[in-house]
Amino acid sequence: MSSTIRIAIDAMGGDYGPESALPGAKLALKAHQGLDICFLIFGDEKKINPYLEKYPDLKKISIVYHTDKMVLNGEKPSAALRASKGTSMRLAIEAVAQGKADAVVSSGNTGALMAMAKIVLKTVPGIHRPAIASIFPAKDSDTYMLDLGANVLVDAENLVQFAVMGSAFAIAHSKVTRPRVGLLNVGTEDSKGPDHVRGAAAILSRVSFPGEYIGFVEGNDITNGSVDVVVSDGYAGNIALKAAEGVGKLTSHYFKKYFAKDIFSIFGALFCFFAIKRLKNKVDPRLYNGGVFLGLNGICVKSHGGCDPLAFSTAMKLAISMAQNDYVKNIGKDINALMSQETFLSEETL
Amino acid sequence: MSSTIRIAIDAMGGDYGPESALPGAKLALKAHQGLDICFLIFGDEKKINPYLEKYPDLKKISIVYHTDKMVLNGEKPSAALRASKGTSMRLAIEAVAQGKADAVVSSGNTGALMAMAKIVLKTVPGIHRPAIASIFPAKDSDTYMLDLGANVLVDAENLVQFAVMGSAFAIAHSKVTRPRVGLLNVGTEDSKGPDHVRGAAAILSRVSFPGEYIGFVEGNDITNGSVDVVVSDGYAGNIALKAAEGVGKLTSHYFKKYFAKDIFSIFGALFCFFAIKRLKNKVDPRLYNGGVFLGLNGICVKSHGGCDPLAFSTAMKLAISMAQNDYVKNIGKDINALMSQETFLSEETL
Repeated sequence: MSSTIRIAIDAMGGDYGPESALPGAKLALKAHQGLDICFLIFGDEKKINPYLEKYPDLKKISIVYHTDKMVLNGEKPSAALRASKGTSMRLAIEAVAQGKADAVVSSGNTGALMAMAKIVLKTVPGIHRPAIASIFPAKDSDTYMLDLGANVLVDAENLVQFAVMGSAFAIAHSKVTRPRVGLLNVGTEDSKGPDHVRGAAAILSRVSFPGEYIGFVEGNDITNGSVDVVVSDGYAGNIALKAAEGVGKLTSHYFKKYFAKDIFSIFGALFCFFAIKRLKNKVDPRLYNGGVFLGLNGICVKSHGGCDPLAFSTAMKLAISMAQNDYVKNIGKDINALMSQETFLSEETL
Repeated sequence: MSSTIRIAIDAMGGDYGPESALPGAKLALKAHQGLDICFLIFGDEKKINPYLEKYPDLKKISIVYHTDKMVLNGEKPSAALRASKGTSMRLAIEAVAQGKADAVVSSGNTGALMAMAKIVLKTVPGIHRPAIASIFPAKDSDTYMLDLGANVLVDAENLVQFAVMGSAFAIAHSKVTRPRVGLLNVGTEDSKGPDHVRGAAAILSRVSFPGEYIGFVEGNDITNGSVDVVVSDGYAGNIALKAAEGVGKLTSHYFKKYFAKDIFSIFGALFCFFAIKRLKNKVDPRLYNGGVFLGLNGICVKSHGGCDPLAFSTAMKLAISMAQNDYVKNIGKDINALMSQETFLSEETL
């Protein structure tokens, strides 16, 4: 890794393409003044260059790699993968694989991005399946959660690996040295939940790994600060993530609606400006945008498809923060240490 | 059904027992002034009577049925069921089965309540499994969602029945005449999600039922007003419910924290009093407390175990509203109409 942080940007992904990615990159750059950063921007130069003309600071540290080809949002991952050669998404991932960039950010088609990242970056030896992890706001802390949708169906062993990968993510990204790890379930009693979750509990309660297994956790624990890493299959994890996002958006909808309703509220809101700003900063889902693909030989951050510039800048910041860490190597080491523990396979079945 | 609305209350359930149930019943009564209501209160009279002395209006319309026995919160449903005779929970459910009450409300052990309600009230003929449904706040409307935890593992046919039961609930409880029904999934494309969800989609897109099947919905759709009934297995449904509750609680935590931080905010908040109140009323999970067991011969409402009086009163209000409806009979009729459709079984497998 050179001392310059180099981020590859797929500028054509998501609902808004360059319209969100370029102003987003500018915001991320502004937030990292003083850091030696370089952006490698992949996509249609006709659409990208007008933004660079508008933002000279961004232009100064960016290199544009032109391509007309892009992955469509609705495309099936398998079809997108077959036709991926030369697309902005694929070229951006390849930049990481070739060592030209430290991380890639895309708000494109999640399935296609994961399929391409797996093929191009390849899985860390020992890891069976990569997972998507993200950061949730919690009471006085953050919660790291995975998988958020890469793997709908998983087995107990996959969940155990996710627990290790999530612990490494939390250690790399926060001040926590031994994260509390919980398995997402419908109750905390041992008898609760589907087989793969109970199977993972049986393993995690016996093996040692960089986190501390604290048992089953429920949906409300994601945000109450009682757990650092929440482990789930991609089915429940994705639904929980989006349900939480939905409540965040609903709150902000009602916030705007009610605070603009009468003159007293508008006047009062002026006095509460900083309180409202602090609250918005805590519950605004755009400030928690960005899913990190864990378990690959390279950093790949998926931004929400419907992201605006602010949300895209959050995903960019996550990529920049991850690029300054060597957490990927640690995951491989931790996984191999875990898998070599004698108890692992023998305890896999309940 | 007599013209008096008669609600059986298990006063000993949940974390707070009579401490939350009795003041909660009082709040519910106050909200229904003018309605002919009677409460049948089951539990320890030594703990119940002091509240009735304190609230003469409540005392006037209540009958206390004393029992020393109660179901413990941590008890396994099977053990609770075996030892259930004479407990406040069982007696309250039996009051509905015997026609002495129109609905029962309990904040006790969910598993035990469901097991007991199934045994005592029995499933509506044609329905394979009862489900827990609840109401979520959404943009300018409410969303009806099920199952929220009664059935961790379900098949496609169970989900289809939940769609019918949820539609009946929405029709009975709201002004919607033909609710939009969606299957909760990790994406909206046909190829997404686990087998039972895709199997249910294949059936629902071909049969006719009182709702309108609109396809897969995602977690954020629960609160964005784009769907009236969200159908899920109890695993993802419970996790989504609690994740959403968690975000609601986190928001209210930060609300208090930031608005009390400086004198400007406190002063401003006074002016925003009504706006804040309206906002709180929309996102306070206590105002959306109460899961209805659908598919049984009788109305059973489960209140959150950790509910305070306000939250318990919400569950009471839901029971009172349901008791004024003959939705249960409709569910049986709708299910039988659905199951007799020729296409049903032949389309069950993908």
